[in-house]
Amino acid sequence: MIDFHLNGVGKEQDSQHQKELSLLNDRLKLAKGLNPIIEKLKCFQVAIPSWALGTGGTRFGRFPGGGEPSTIVQKIEDVALLHRLNKSSGAISLHFPWDKVENMQELTEIATSHGISFDAVNSNTFQDQIDQPYSYKYGSLCHTDKEVRKLAIDHNKEVIALGDRLGSKALTVWLSDGSIFPGQQDFKSALSRTLDSLNEIYEKLPEDWTLLLEYKPFEPNFYSMVIPDWGTSFMLVSELGEKAKTLVDLGHHLPNTNIEQIVSTLLFGNKLGGFHFNDSKYGDDDLTVGSLKPYQMFLIFCELVKGMNEDPKLDLAWMIDASHNLKDPLEDLIQSVEAINIAYAQALIVDYESLAFYQNQNDATKCQEILQEAFRTDVRPIVREARLQQDGAFDPLRSFRELKVRESLIASRGTHSKATGL
Amino acid sequence: MIDFHLNGVGKEQDSQHQKELSLLNDRLKLAKGLNPIIEKLKCFQVAIPSWALGTGGTRFGRFPGGGEPSTIVQKIEDVALLHRLNKSSGAISLHFPWDKVENMQELTEIATSHGISFDAVNSNTFQDQIDQPYSYKYGSLCHTDKEVRKLAIDHNKEVIALGDRLGSKALTVWLSDGSIFPGQQDFKSALSRTLDSLNEIYEKLPEDWTLLLEYKPFEPNFYSMVIPDWGTSFMLVSELGEKAKTLVDLGHHLPNTNIEQIVSTLLFGNKLGGFHFNDSKYGDDDLTVGSLKPYQMFLIFCELVKGMNEDPKLDLAWMIDASHNLKDPLEDLIQSVEAINIAYAQALIVDYESLAFYQNQNDATKCQEILQEAFRTDVRPIVREARLQQDGAFDPLRSFRELKVRESLIASRGTHSKATGL
Amino acid sequence: MIDFHLNGVGKEQDSQHQKELSLLNDRLKLAKGLNPIIEKLKCFQVAIPSWALGTGGTRFGRFPGGGEPSTIVQKIEDVALLHRLNKSSGAISLHFPWDKVENMQELTEIATSHGISFDAVNSNTFQDQIDQPYSYKYGSLCHTDKEVRKLAIDHNKEVIALGDRLGSKALTVWLSDGSIFPGQQDFKSALSRTLDSLNEIYEKLPEDWTLLLEYKPFEPNFYSMVIPDWGTSFMLVSELGEKAKTLVDLGHHLPNTNIEQIVSTLLFGNKLGGFHFNDSKYGDDDLTVGSLKPYQMFLIFCELVKGMNEDPKLDLAWMIDASHNLKDPLEDLIQSVEAINIAYAQALIVDYESLAFYQNQNDATKCQEILQEAFRTDVRPIVREARLQQDGAFDPLRSFRELKVRESLIASRGTHSKATGL
Amino acid sequence: MIDFHLNGVGKEQDSQHQKELSLLNDRLKLAKGLNPIIEKLKCFQVAIPSWALGTGGTRFGRFPGGGEPSTIVQKIEDVALLHRLNKSSGAISLHFPWDKVENMQELTEIATSHGISFDAVNSNTFQDQIDQPYSYKYGSLCHTDKEVRKLAIDHNKEVIALGDRLGSKALTVWLSDGSIFPGQQDFKSALSRTLDSLNEIYEKLPEDWTLLLEYKPFEPNFYSMVIPDWGTSFMLVSELGEKAKTLVDLGHHLPNTNIEQIVSTLLFGNKLGGFHFNDSKYGDDDLTVGSLKPYQMFLIFCELVKGMNEDPKLDLAWMIDASHNLKDPLEDLIQSVEAINIAYAQALIVDYESLAFYQNQNDATKCQEILQEAFRTDVRPIVREARLQQDGAFDPLRSFRELKVRESLIASRGTHSKATGL
Repeated sequence: MIDFHLNGVGKEQDSQHQKELSLLNDRLKLAKGLNPIIEKLKCFQVAIPSWALGTGGTRFGRFPGGGEPSTIVQKIEDVALLHRLNKSSGAISLHFPWDKVENMQELTEIATSHGISFDAVNSNTFQDQIDQPYSYKYGSLCHTDKEVRKLAIDHNKEVIALGDRLGSKALTVWLSDGSIFPGQQDFKSALSRTLDSLNEIYEKLPEDWTLLLEYKPFEPNFYSMVIPDWGTSFMLVSELGEKAKTLVDLGHHLPNTNIEQIVSTLLFGNKLGGFHFNDSKYGDDDLTVGSLKPYQMFLIFCELVKGMNEDPKLDLAWMIDASHNLKDPLEDLIQSVEAINIAYAQALIVDYESLAFYQNQNDATKCQEILQEAFRTDVRPIVREARLQQDGAFDPLRSFRELKVRESLIASRGTHSKATGL
Repeated sequence: MIDFHLNGVGKEQDSQHQKELSLLNDRLKLAKGLNPIIEKLKCFQVAIPSWALGTGGTRFGRFPGGGEPSTIVQKIEDVALLHRLNKSSGAISLHFPWDKVENMQELTEIATSHGISFDAVNSNTFQDQIDQPYSYKYGSLCHTDKEVRKLAIDHNKEVIALGDRLGSKALTVWLSDGSIFPGQQDFKSALSRTLDSLNEIYEKLPEDWTLLLEYKPFEPNFYSMVIPDWGTSFMLVSELGEKAKTLVDLGHHLPNTNIEQIVSTLLFGNKLGGFHFNDSKYGDDDLTVGSLKPYQMFLIFCELVKGMNEDPKLDLAWMIDASHNLKDPLEDLIQSVEAINIAYAQALIVDYESLAFYQNQNDATKCQEILQEAFRTDVRPIVREARLQQDGAFDPLRSFRELKVRESLIASRGTHSKATGL
Repeated sequence: MIDFHLNGVGKEQDSQHQKELSLLNDRLKLAKGLNPIIEKLKCFQVAIPSWALGTGGTRFGRFPGGGEPSTIVQKIEDVALLHRLNKSSGAISLHFPWDKVENMQELTEIATSHGISFDAVNSNTFQDQIDQPYSYKYGSLCHTDKEVRKLAIDHNKEVIALGDRLGSKALTVWLSDGSIFPGQQDFKSALSRTLDSLNEIYEKLPEDWTLLLEYKPFEPNFYSMVIPDWGTSFMLVSELGEKAKTLVDLGHHLPNTNIEQIVSTLLFGNKLGGFHFNDSKYGDDDLTVGSLKPYQMFLIFCELVKGMNEDPKLDLAWMIDASHNLKDPLEDLIQSVEAINIAYAQALIVDYESLAFYQNQNDATKCQEILQEAFRTDVRPIVREARLQQDGAFDPLRSFRELKVRESLIASRGTHSKATGL
Repeated sequence: MIDFHLNGVGKEQDSQHQKELSLLNDRLKLAKGLNPIIEKLKCFQVAIPSWALGTGGTRFGRFPGGGEPSTIVQKIEDVALLHRLNKSSGAISLHFPWDKVENMQELTEIATSHGISFDAVNSNTFQDQIDQPYSYKYGSLCHTDKEVRKLAIDHNKEVIALGDRLGSKALTVWLSDGSIFPGQQDFKSALSRTLDSLNEIYEKLPEDWTLLLEYKPFEPNFYSMVIPDWGTSFMLVSELGEKAKTLVDLGHHLPNTNIEQIVSTLLFGNKLGGFHFNDSKYGDDDLTVGSLKPYQMFLIFCELVKGMNEDPKLDLAWMIDASHNLKDPLEDLIQSVEAINIAYAQALIVDYESLAFYQNQNDATKCQEILQEAFRTDVRPIVREARLQQDGAFDPLRSFRELKVRESLIASRGTHSKATGL
């Protein structure tokens, strides 16, 4: 692994940082000061998906950069490197069969040595692997052919088994199943078969695991997806049982959807399981978190903070799911994690007691003021302080560049290494 | 009521009609011929909402025509007139308090004399009535103030009581409740209060009644609606009990939503209760059925026909919910009912057995052919035949114009009569 | 007019304010300090539309508050009151015939006495006035009937004449013209007639005036609008001549439109004329500026600041166009103006030189950092300082509430006064 | 090339066909009968893009079928085969460098021998070719680097030269240029550079050629595209000159866009150049023409027919641009061409004189009736007759299957041949 020391990059800004933090403390006048917020930020860890460490593409082309991790060990090293900088990326989420290796034991040891844990594992039934006996061309868990369904079910069971050996506690299922043309698929039959398949997978789920079920309205199918919306996922996980929950990917919604309300409704129904963070303007654009709709991110985190305040045992899976055509993938992830931390910090300084008071009075003006007060506050000193208290970088992106991390990776891995992924 | 005789308008086209029907019969080669389809069309009745008989408007203006029905009796007469022409509009759906009158008994008698029955009754908690003790400005069933909720609950109970006296068997609840600004409303609390309120109403529902719960993503609230999507309605009606079902209004969806799939999913979950038919391009435009997306209408009816084939006891509420800024409301309804009948007839001639066969083979090309074969067929002779067999008009719109029905209505009601509604 | 003194509301926060301003100055390290930015903010004035001072509604209902201005004099007083608080609302935009009075001279005197000027005047051809000889039901400038077009053209000419007497320098034309059903209107003929009508109006435009032409994709027409998008407006104003420009209303776009790019393209084509600020999630929701998409507002202002930097003579019309169902209209406007000022201040502190450097290097990471650095900065001290230097309120909303302005207005105008508007 | 004879497939249906045609003739009562319509259909040819003959994919995967054409000669043979069946696909549209071969002369001869001509040629600057000296990762004609722009400009010039040798008369330019993140690109500079680059290409355009400029709102760039909408394309082609026109791809629009109105507006501005036909629900889904929104197709053709009636010299480029993940590409094209012919035939039987009459009366009811009358008519006998009169297949899809064309192709080309494309 690339070895680097933070070397005090950013040190000269420390005095300004202290002043900003102190002035913020004066202004916010929180009963217990900023410390409880800083502590919460320190505990907060977002998993990095193994497939976000390389350059993603579109159907029109893929423009790779250099120094991409070509093995799962290198991917773990990339996450460790990120975590070294921001102290908020202490977990990796694997995707099988992309990340499958002979020696799973070794993986665990390497990860542990870097302080990285394994988050939810992901199955892949949207692509055909070489020598696969049946094709997923017309679906997987929903397929009309029992043999294809069995193949997909068995694959999911195997992913659970693999995850179990890594210490994962969740299986994330995203199905690309659906249809492209009206009539191609009988909706009810497809949904029914999917439920049956999921039941078979669910039976193999260890007691302390969660099955996270995604939904998505379109792509790669463009007429219907078998699980197009949160309602369908909710219906299915309700049938499956207590260990099944819905996972919200921010990019998986129709135009204008109020995502923060869905988050709240799933909390109401006890079925919110986790998140795939990213940002988008048109569809599943898989862009850097917070790069387009930062206020939406903040509003989502307000729902989450309220949920966690109400139920301290609420255990959600946090993960980034972005795919990067243009930026250096590590720089993109640095920006994404920073955006998540900022949204979380903004949501933590909201005065929910006042908010509830004015909500009860239907004083929309004041409610808006309370949220905007938090959002307009520059909380970066708080986020930075949480990072510094854990010996992270003053400014992760600046460190990444000044320490020439990518250059080192290219030197060691070459310019043509290629990561698995989209 | 305006008295008119169909006078054989269209008679000269009868020979062409017979030839078309016969040729269609030759081509379709249905095992039992066209008769079973004609019989189904004859049984099919779509309720007319009392508020669609006048000119609807937008916030920018309202441009009324003349001869609008200004009393509920006149509205019943308008529906009777429609039914006389098309034989498919034998029911009216009332909206309270708009349609409330002293003498409910009289209403029933008048309706019966015209062969019109009372379909689902509708409550209105989206507008304040004069002298109302509390305002719905900030919601009704979801309101933070218990007194407001009570007012709205009591109103719904009263609507049930009124409907009961009319012979209605369903209460349709559409809530405009929601919020305009982020923070204004706590989603979970609002949803929880709404469920409690609905439970109180549900308790008063007679045994043989259905509570139909609508959903809508936006308008008149523009940040969140308490019941924004089918998933939330499904969650609520599942909590309420067996007599509660979801009602689908075609205009109440986000851009690009696959509505026919929602219909199918609700059928899968045994929670489809009924329809509000209309058409739209941008939002809840409330336009004439079939005027913009006739293929979508057909696809929805394919799901419905499959559902009714599987479960002959399936009892759905069919209603038009359109609002007309420019056309003569009765002409608009004639066109809407015709479009519904056409979509239904097209869906009835689909070869579902072949479709299922090719779906099982994932032969998307053939599946598309089967649907398009039905959709591209000109089924108007079938629809016409069903109407003629019941002594309806050969061409309802032509009869309406040639018999100068609107002119008669204006003569008797005046040019400035105004119907209640939006 | 309500008389009030700011009475030092907020004075106790002055020391914190000074510290924040100073620390911001230290951090931003601008070559010329914060003063040039503060000066630009002081010069920046946003016109208040006369129709935003009352409660707007939807087709479903209208829930008025109390103390609304029922005369144009009272509306001017409301704007003066706003301007007294925020020092950024020194102009009013009138809408005819809503704001027409006998004595126009008096209006000018009253406005002058309050330091309020008259911004663009607006014509109204989307509603029928009582005793209007022809109806706009089927359009105005595009109408098939020459007499209706003449009525609408003459009305626009009259509005120009009225505006001329008030010292206005621009006519804003928004057409609701369009069609609800396919086939209702021949697109080309309607567009051609509209161009001819606009030409007649343009001929009467004084030399130093601008004709601002809006566009809107839907509502109140739901199939087509004659001027649905910026391209059509651009095509028309290019035909009309140099004094005709396109006006961008933020709420008048299809889902997912990149509005900041349209702003830039219109600047490229020398045809950007002005803005109607508001915010929205679904359509022309007319919500408080910045309440939903503050980052979009910032990105738009970045384009505007670049445009003004390149062409210091660029003269744009700035106006709010919001309509308020729930909030106190004056509170809503206070929040809107604050949001505009914040977006402008954020855009003013962007380092455009660095941005251009990294754009030329295609360094998307750094470009994003530069924009986010500005957006995440809490610029409220700068905005506040600009206000305080002009003897405005420390916190306009707090002053409005603590000084009980609305209560005074209700006391003097009553609870049932009603403003003209939607 | 696969040799096959139509062998009278469908012959047994001929009598029914004749009856249907005759009855249609009786009903439509056209002054000159059906013949003029049949003649127009016989003249109508839609170009097939060389890249639609293989299986397209998404970023998630690609599931090829067998027997795909792996050379441009085989692609021409596939188009010839299609044309043999439907008699409406007598042209192919090439895409360079995908379709580049050493011996261009041979191509022309082969095409001529099959009766296939070369339609518009397409350049590709959205992908990097192996050994390309500069990358299009950050754009082509808009690139910040002059060398990259030169590479892209030269490629376009080369495509013109290649097309010229084939007898093409148009260059279609689709740019994927744009940005993924706010700030990444300066909109105005990028647009300005694009215009300059286009000017250089335009200078090389032969006198009798047309430059067709596409637009697209998103994908593969997800924040901005340099030419996102028809307005920008119109602005650019207006600057370029008379030989430059806008090309409309049906899938390149934001949700809910009224495409038929854009067609009409471009006709009004004399800048409509051609079409890429396909269908879609969410974005650039590239699905079979007419598979989702057949009424929209009909409405578009109504505008085109009106345009061609007004200006018989109107010369438009017609092309399919679809990409097929699931269906046999040739079957997909058979369905697409059939759908186009049906929409055209429906538009040809519209009574435009009556339509104009009722439009002038603002009789929306009758206008809708006139359009629906045409759309609801089963025009397939007319389309079939036009095909039969040219010795095409009675039912192209049925012939394709019964004659086992794909099986023959697989036998000769193998199951693993792969076509170039997306």
